[in-house]
Amino acid sequence: MRFDVQVETRPRAGIADPEGSTIERSLPALGFEGIQDVRVGKSFRFHVEADDEAAAHALVEDVCARFLTNPVIEDSSITVTEASTV
Amino acid sequence: MRFDVQVETRPRAGIADPEGSTIERSLPALGFEGIQDVRVGKSFRFHVEADDEAAAHALVEDVCARFLTNPVIEDSSITVTEASTV
Repeated sequence: MRFDVQVETRPRAGIADPEGSTIERSLPALGFEGIQDVRVGKSFRFHVEADDEAAAHALVEDVCARFLTNPVIEDSSITVTEASTV
Repeated sequence: MRFDVQVETRPRAGIADPEGSTIERSLPALGFEGIQDVRVGKSFRFHVEADDEAAAHALVEDVCARFLTNPVIEDSSITVTEASTV
């Protein structure tokens, strides 16, 4: 079976996020008010072939732990959904 | 009212994604099989103060169009949810 996967990473609470801070400081100069706590992370999307959703989730967790994310400074969330068969 | 916002950007279909391609090529060497179509984008999260959800969404669309995304090469999706009042 084929699954759509999204992995989102973001800096953990308390970890400096210079990109987010820069965006937040720039917004008022562009006329945008009321936006706070900007944090910038990455979004990975891909397809996985696996026997079932549990196997797909386990594979993606392993990929994240070994390759895509740095758990010391990043939180990540994994979303696995069955790919539509068109 | 306060809203949680997530903006996800990703390269449009047909636009080269060197980071995604590099990840995809590297996975078999790490022993991961069955992963395809890796695309890497960004995930922005922030809080917005606005009168209602429609106003928050309109503000975020404007921020995206003028600042966060490049619509020539990127698709983006916006998710606005009311912040939990703890």
